[in-house]
Amino acid sequence: MTKIIERTGKDIGLVETQYFTFGNSPDELVLESGEKLSPVMLAYETYGTLNKDKTNAILILHALTGNAHVAGFHPDEKDPGWWDNMIGYGKAFDIDKYFVICSNVIGGCQGSTGPSSINPKTGKPYGLDFPLITIKDMVSAQAHLVRSLGIKKLLCVAGGSMGGMQVLQWTVSFPEMVATAIPIATSARHSPQQIAFNEVGRQAIMADPDWQDGHYYGKSAPTRGLAVARMIGHITYMSDVSMAEKFGRRVKEERAEKKFSPDFEVEGYLQYRGDNFVKRFDANSYLYITKAIDRFDLTNGSSLEKIFKAAASVKFLVIAFKSDWLYPAYQSKEIVKACKQAQIDVSYCELNSTYGHDAFLVEVEEQDHFIRNFLRRISDE
Amino acid sequence: MTKIIERTGKDIGLVETQYFTFGNSPDELVLESGEKLSPVMLAYETYGTLNKDKTNAILILHALTGNAHVAGFHPDEKDPGWWDNMIGYGKAFDIDKYFVICSNVIGGCQGSTGPSSINPKTGKPYGLDFPLITIKDMVSAQAHLVRSLGIKKLLCVAGGSMGGMQVLQWTVSFPEMVATAIPIATSARHSPQQIAFNEVGRQAIMADPDWQDGHYYGKSAPTRGLAVARMIGHITYMSDVSMAEKFGRRVKEERAEKKFSPDFEVEGYLQYRGDNFVKRFDANSYLYITKAIDRFDLTNGSSLEKIFKAAASVKFLVIAFKSDWLYPAYQSKEIVKACKQAQIDVSYCELNSTYGHDAFLVEVEEQDHFIRNFLRRISDE
Repeated sequence: MTKIIERTGKDIGLVETQYFTFGNSPDELVLESGEKLSPVMLAYETYGTLNKDKTNAILILHALTGNAHVAGFHPDEKDPGWWDNMIGYGKAFDIDKYFVICSNVIGGCQGSTGPSSINPKTGKPYGLDFPLITIKDMVSAQAHLVRSLGIKKLLCVAGGSMGGMQVLQWTVSFPEMVATAIPIATSARHSPQQIAFNEVGRQAIMADPDWQDGHYYGKSAPTRGLAVARMIGHITYMSDVSMAEKFGRRVKEERAEKKFSPDFEVEGYLQYRGDNFVKRFDANSYLYITKAIDRFDLTNGSSLEKIFKAAASVKFLVIAFKSDWLYPAYQSKEIVKACKQAQIDVSYCELNSTYGHDAFLVEVEEQDHFIRNFLRRISDE
Repeated sequence: MTKIIERTGKDIGLVETQYFTFGNSPDELVLESGEKLSPVMLAYETYGTLNKDKTNAILILHALTGNAHVAGFHPDEKDPGWWDNMIGYGKAFDIDKYFVICSNVIGGCQGSTGPSSINPKTGKPYGLDFPLITIKDMVSAQAHLVRSLGIKKLLCVAGGSMGGMQVLQWTVSFPEMVATAIPIATSARHSPQQIAFNEVGRQAIMADPDWQDGHYYGKSAPTRGLAVARMIGHITYMSDVSMAEKFGRRVKEERAEKKFSPDFEVEGYLQYRGDNFVKRFDANSYLYITKAIDRFDLTNGSSLEKIFKAAASVKFLVIAFKSDWLYPAYQSKEIVKACKQAQIDVSYCELNSTYGHDAFLVEVEEQDHFIRNFLRRISDE
């Protein structure tokens, strides 16, 4: 089952991405909008070994621009997966004990069906003919993957940011398939400020003439607009304090002669992150996924308390970070409060960190402690 | 002296903008960079009457996209000047008592010399041939205006945001010309987060192919990029709470059929503000002024305490707002602390408001109270 190619001590070593396809006619994936998607491919990776009873599986869910490669190394890359510090032999998500799955989302551009995939009806990339997808649709697709692995119940679903939204949706859409849930640095629905930041990113992409109403495949991609969107994102992922610590007001060593070229280090950093991002991410996927995030509203016109009654059997560990101003702790507290009202077993950790929203990716030690103990308690029961 | 055309009760009524020109050869304005600017025009407005001794003048300084039209009405406009609620007969800046001047900044596009002005050397708009200007340069130009009005000492210099930076610079560059200073919602130097937001705005403008390295005059202006820059700005001017109160997650009544057209009210608002802004503001001015703001560092490589020793005779009233996360109160407190260390007479007000950075424009009552009493105390001395 495991696709770990080479084990090196506590580290996972080399891994490879796998692909799961479903939804061939007449079993198309019916989306929340009523539209059908067919076929559907999901990129995913697995680590560790599924036990005989298939009761030790943990599903990790990624953020806006994340992917299935959560841990270990790909042969051609020098950096490990995006949460490698949390997943491995003896780590918080200990693959000596657990079978860890990480699934990419539909709408994305990193191995799963999305707007850059070929539309079987036309033989060309979907572009904006790709249907609008929701967080619930992402989760529905993942449920197909989990079932295909023979897993009836996940020991845990965990993830930060948009990953946390998927975690919440999992507990409500498929409570019978989820024993425990760890939503981190997330929200049950976006505030107008959160929507606004995403919207400005979308406007930057759509203002780029290369966007061409989404039909740019095979031509110049709207990289300038996408880079601006990413820069906005990066500011919101950090904190005032973490930026002050990382950059201060230091000026770049090499300054271009042109007026308005970046002269502060922080400007150079943003440009670097923007320029790198456009090499690996599709602008249309950015539109589709941010729109799914903005429209996500777990209350669905009701109340969180009522919605969570469906998830009464799931045990929650909710984690937030004090300096996270993009997903402020009060949003996690709303989740905790609703869980309690719905008489759900819920623990809450608000961690001190200066890293802002990025904390969920970089603050290993404390998260490790709480997650490890939470999983141990659950496994012991 | 006063250019009020028509007085209506407590309101100022109709006013008109005036223009002051200086810096004709051989008396060019020498900029901080060493470059010379000639001629220099400043748009300004005045309200009330300068007394015989010329001791009742107050200079109001505006923010990034503000202008000289701070109060009263222009004949063709339905909205009054940008701080009309603070300036008028019987208002905080009471023009029954005080002679109020508001000066536009160089580098701008609203009547003062800036990148869209005609370069006398070429007979064409400067574009990026306009020299980089600084907050200190803006203040130096204003000092010419103030002297031209026969005023040796201003009773007060006051302003919010970038206006507050000019206030601080006035107290250090021309302490002998300033009796009191009211810097509001401002900073003695930009943090990397503040620089980052401005930089993303600049990148959005420069990513617009219509920008053409700044030489777009007479052709299509980079309105799409400038609108994105403005949208980013607007998010930072509000607060999480004020956005939640104003918009919630309400969807627009009229929703366009196109995918990714704004569907939440907050998205429609940002688009509206962006689209309106490009009708009145020049993209190059946005670049020049934001760069002046980002490079502003009152400490000038020394410490605020040492710098403020030059301003020991000036009395300060520093105002900040709790929900202002763009210019957080800690930055105002740094100013207050340095004033105290320099044995300056300083008062500090941190006002409760949910309006974020916009509070300095909209929170009238409490500001009115503190400013009115501060000015009364000063006038009585």
